[in-house]
This record gives sequence, structure tokens and C-alpha cells, in this order.
Amino acid sequence: MRSVSVAGVGLTRIKEHWEKSLRDLFAEAALKALDDAGTDEIDAVYVSNMGSATLQSQLHLGAMMADAIGKRGITALRVEAASASGGVAFHEGVKAVASGLHDCVLVGGVEKMSDALPGEVAAALAMAEDQEYTAYTGVTKLGLNALVHRRYMERFGAEAKEIAMFAVRGHEHAVGCPHAQYPFKVSVERILASPMEADPIHMLECSSVGDGAAAIILRPAEEAEDGVEVASTAVATDFYHLTERYDITVFEAVRWAAARAFEAAGVSHKDIDVLEVHDDTTITGVVSLEDLGFVEKGKGAAFVAEGNTARGGELPTNTFGGLKARGNPVGATGLYQIAEIALQLRGEAGPCQVEGAETGLAQSLGGLGTTCAVTILRRR
Amino acid sequence: MRSVSVAGVGLTRIKEHWEKSLRDLFAEAALKALDDAGTDEIDAVYVSNMGSATLQSQLHLGAMMADAIGKRGITALRVEAASASGGVAFHEGVKAVASGLHDCVLVGGVEKMSDALPGEVAAALAMAEDQEYTAYTGVTKLGLNALVHRRYMERFGAEAKEIAMFAVRGHEHAVGCPHAQYPFKVSVERILASPMEADPIHMLECSSVGDGAAAIILRPAEEAEDGVEVASTAVATDFYHLTERYDITVFEAVRWAAARAFEAAGVSHKDIDVLEVHDDTTITGVVSLEDLGFVEKGKGAAFVAEGNTARGGELPTNTFGGLKARGNPVGATGLYQIAEIALQLRGEAGPCQVEGAETGLAQSLGGLGTTCAVTILRRR
Repeated sequence: MRSVSVAGVGLTRIKEHWEKSLRDLFAEAALKALDDAGTDEIDAVYVSNMGSATLQSQLHLGAMMADAIGKRGITALRVEAASASGGVAFHEGVKAVASGLHDCVLVGGVEKMSDALPGEVAAALAMAEDQEYTAYTGVTKLGLNALVHRRYMERFGAEAKEIAMFAVRGHEHAVGCPHAQYPFKVSVERILASPMEADPIHMLECSSVGDGAAAIILRPAEEAEDGVEVASTAVATDFYHLTERYDITVFEAVRWAAARAFEAAGVSHKDIDVLEVHDDTTITGVVSLEDLGFVEKGKGAAFVAEGNTARGGELPTNTFGGLKARGNPVGATGLYQIAEIALQLRGEAGPCQVEGAETGLAQSLGGLGTTCAVTILRRR
Repeated sequence: MRSVSVAGVGLTRIKEHWEKSLRDLFAEAALKALDDAGTDEIDAVYVSNMGSATLQSQLHLGAMMADAIGKRGITALRVEAASASGGVAFHEGVKAVASGLHDCVLVGGVEKMSDALPGEVAAALAMAEDQEYTAYTGVTKLGLNALVHRRYMERFGAEAKEIAMFAVRGHEHAVGCPHAQYPFKVSVERILASPMEADPIHMLECSSVGDGAAAIILRPAEEAEDGVEVASTAVATDFYHLTERYDITVFEAVRWAAARAFEAAGVSHKDIDVLEVHDDTTITGVVSLEDLGFVEKGKGAAFVAEGNTARGGELPTNTFGGLKARGNPVGATGLYQIAEIALQLRGEAGPCQVEGAETGLAQSLGGLGTTCAVTILRRR
């Protein structure tokens, strides 16, 4: 297998894009990425998206998006793994270049949720869980996260204000980020005073509905002397039902994907200078820090509260705001994370820059820890 | 890149499976394929499916199906490219093994359409076309096929009864096929007397609604001394809108994918002993024969009527009945085709066997010639 580089990235701002279609958003990000990579010769397009079938009555996004950017004849397809779709599509794109089958691949994620009613969005997100045994009960994705959040507090004695600090850090980091949906600070008091969405999760601990697209160009690493290289990618899945798991405060898929990604990259946890984790609610961010292996089990919330994940801290995490503050257009989110790591390693993160970052890791989740994609990038 | 072999196949019969879920069908095919390959050590599951979001309110099929067959920790994802999903998922699975990243991959397709109302199925299939410019007009997938069918007759002077012969051949071939939905003969008179679905397409020229799953195990070819090898796979896409194409009787995506697949395999058209083409209606079968390069443009219908595609003819085509008679569970269809080629090359096609078949080609379409996947297999 040959090494693969991230040759270009393109991001749209995440917000309620009433005036833009799924295609418009994708094309905007994709053309920026092509421009950034200085090429328009691509062999394949991988599109990641979760909800277009029910939110836009649209499938077959591979061919649609290849056409939208003026490409005919090339390979194009859609990859779906719920909210891990972006990370998983990246994994596929890397394989395509590593195998030698393609020399230039565009991996782009897109999601447009603002057009839909809240119930339609909740129903689309619930499709990450089993419709016959779980979703039909009416439980929402947020309701399931609340089970984990409550059990975590009970088991480890974590306090609500410590877990809420994950959202505080995200909002601190989003300030100045041009593609962030909510680039402003929020206090822990404000978060804990916000309405309960699904007890014990407060409204301001949840990522919100947003539209956006992120695109990345992959090329063989030997073509560039410097830049950002894909050190490894890994995907793992766990029991589909929360009820089958031994311990709902542990995301085993994260442990497996991380173990494989670290081994394949030949780096250790202390080599990671910058980290992006999947905080669709605060608790998944905290659990992810632990199951990725950066913090002892049960100590994640305190670790965050102590300031370790701040941009100037020991482990700068979600340095553009994370899902909470940068935004979470689900099918695109994993690619925002990877693009952000690439920007950090290129030293182009602007006010979000972590000085001297050389190695970074992005982790995204589909369902409640059911699918996990881990990507490690390094500066060459 | 290392060579890849088809180490096992598993098929469910296509019919109205009222008593089985999407998961049941997938698991049945997947476990048969694992049994056929004599392994239960797989590294990754690729699931192809088109309509589950609207027909079953279900996404995230990668993790669901990995769990359904008792696998945790492995890579799993869903690939979607409308009715080419199966062929495209196979393409991805091959890359995963060829790259060296995985040593044993299960590619499985599943679709369950019987549970839905006819309008829901038509709406799901229409999502292969652009919702904002095409599908919203109310045109169905069948209505678009009818435009091509009519234009083809006008342009080339092909007669209705010649084109209808594509369905006659399919039904002849399905007799005795244990996984076929309609394993019985149908006369050309009966086809032309059946109701018009979308003029000039008769009801008995259309593939029907059916439920089914097909699974294939891929391993490095060096592990087996004989068996079936993947000679090449290729995917290509065309303009998304029929209105943008220079000539709607030509599927350029088929030409591109075929050219790449033949070149990569190093074989010529006359090496192909058995062929599976995408006949969701008779006209797409005829046009596919031409654009794959087996027949001169405009001569496909006469070629079929003359008997060349019969099992004992010059180019045995759709030897288990094709989409029309074997059945068309859309997201799984491309994998049925590839599995059928593998069975032919193994000499295990029973009453459908083409004697001495050594090389075969499967071609599947997403949308109306918008995405094309071509796979060439050969006996080692």
C-alpha cells in the first residue's frame, strides 16, 4: 500500500443555509478543496451523507455530486454509516488511493437539515438505531444519550457541571472560526440553566441542526515533499443495541478502532498534538476521550473541567468548536473534523491554531458508539 | 495490488418475503456465503441497499448487519448508488482486499420492497433521479425508461416484438433456477398483450418488486489454487439528467466502465463466455448489450431476437433470468449478478449452466444509465 496525503480541504460555513441546496453546498466545498489542492483531475468522488432520503427525497448522491462539479466518467458513490459517514467515507477514499486504483480522490460530505421539521430530523437521526426494536418505541437519539449520561454520573460520581464543561470548551474554541455555526462563548451556568432536552442533558449540551459540506482531496503522498499525510484510518462497530452491551458507559467500537489506528500509524497517545472527538452531546465527548485511551475511565469529565482539553492545555481538543459549537451536519461532520486536523498540521488554523502541531487524531461516531471511525494525520 | 478471489457466494430466493425482515434476509445470504467459503473470520462487511431509509425507516445498515451475523469490532458500512449499489459495493470490497488492508471481506446486498405500497416503491426508485428537476415532476423511473425505449424504436427502426424478446430469453433461462422469482416461460405474444405500464413499455417487460439478499466473500487470490478470480472492476457515472445527454439511446457510463474493466482485465469481448446485464426493463438490457461493446449500436434488439443471447447461443446472457425473471431487489441485484457469474465459472449453475464458461462479465446500472458498475471474473 502506498502512503496517502491530504492534498486539499474545502469547508462551507455551517448554518441554516435556506438559499442553498444539497448540491450547492457540496459543490461549494468540493470546488474549494480542488482549488486548495491545485488540481481538477480527479478519478473518484466519495459522498458521505446520512439523511438525504427522507430530508430531501434524494438518493444516488455519488453520480449527482460528480455531475455537480462537472465530472463525467469517473467513479462516484455514496457511503453511509449514520453520523460516522464522513469518517468512514474518508477511510474508503484512503483505501482507493493506497491500493493504487485511483490517483486523486475527492471525499466530500454534505447534510442539509434546516429544511425539515424537528420531528423529521429526529426520525432521520433515530434511523441510526434499530427501527424494529429501539426506534419504534419513540426513544430519540438524544434520549439514548441521556441513558449513558445518567449512568455515567451514577457510576463515576461525575458532576453535571464537569460534564457540561465539554460544551464550554467547544464554544471557547469556536470563537474566530470562520466555518463555525456558534462562534461565541457560553458559560457553564448558562448551560446548566438551559432547558432539559432529555434529563440529565441540557439543551446547550447538544449539537444542533445545521447545514454544511466538507471536502478533502486525497493523493499519493510521494507526489508532495511536504504537507499532511494519512498515518492511518480504522473503522470498527459494536453491538447494534445498547441493551446488548456489557456497560453502556464504554464505547468498545472506539477502543477497537483506536487500537488499530494507533498500531497502524506507529504513534502513541502522547504523540497526538491535536484531537477532534465526536461530541454530539457533552457525554459522548467525555466518553470518547476515555475510550480513545487519553484519560482513565471515569476521569474524563474532571480532565475536561481541569482545562486539559483547552487549546493551550495538555491535549487540545475540538479546537474549532467540535460538534457543539463548530456544528454537526451529520453526514459531513467526520470530514469537518479531519479537515480541521489538516488545517492545524498545516499551521493554517488562524485564531484556532495550536502551535507546532505535528500529529492529530479525529474520531467520529455513528449511532451511540455503534460505529467508530478513527483517522490519524501527521505533518511530513 | 494483490489479486482477489470470490471465495464464497450466498443467495436467498427472490420473492415476497412477508415473514422475513431486512436483517433476516441479509443474515441468510451472508451465512450461506460464509459457509460456502468455509470461514467465519471476516474483517469487514460492505452492505449495499437503496431504499431502506424510506421503505424500512432504517439507516446504518453496516453496523446492523455486522451485528446480525455475530460480528463485533470489524469494519462495516453501507454503499449506495441507486440500483447499481451491489456492483459498486463489490468494487469497494475488492479494493479493500486488493490494498492489503483486509484479508476477508463480506459484500452483501439486501432490499425488501414488498412491505411498501406501490407509490412508496415508485418514490424510492425515483430518488435515483434529481428530486429538484426531474422526480418532482411526477415522472417515474419507468416513465424515463419509456422515453429511451420510444426513441430507440424511432431511431433504429427496432420493432416492439424484438425488444420484448429480451424478456422472453430471461424467462426461458430462469426455469430451474432455485433463487429466481419468476422461473417460468412467457411468450412474446403474452408480453405484448400485457398492459402498457409506460407506453411503449408493457408490464411484462418490467422487472418487478421483490425481496432478497445476495452475499459474496472476497479473499486474496493467492490463498486458493483454483476458484474464481476478480479480473477487474470499474465504476463510471454520466450526466445526472437525461436532458443533458447528447443521445438518450446511448449509456456513456456503460462505455466508460466497460472500457476500463476490459483494459484492466486484459481480456477482449470474445473472451466473455457468460454475461449478466441490467434489464430493469427490456430496453436497458438491449442498450447495455450495445454499450458494453458486444453488439453494434441499434442492432441489439435484433441480436437478441435472433437467439444469440440464449444459453446455447453465441453470448449467453442473463443465464438465471436477469432482473426480469430472476428478480430485481434493487440494492442486492448487482451482487446476484456477480454471484451468478461465479456459479457459472465454478460449474455450479445446475440447469442454468453454460458449459465450459471460463470468463464472465456483470454490469449493473444506477438510475437510467447514470452509474454503471462492470465486473469481470475468470476461472483460475
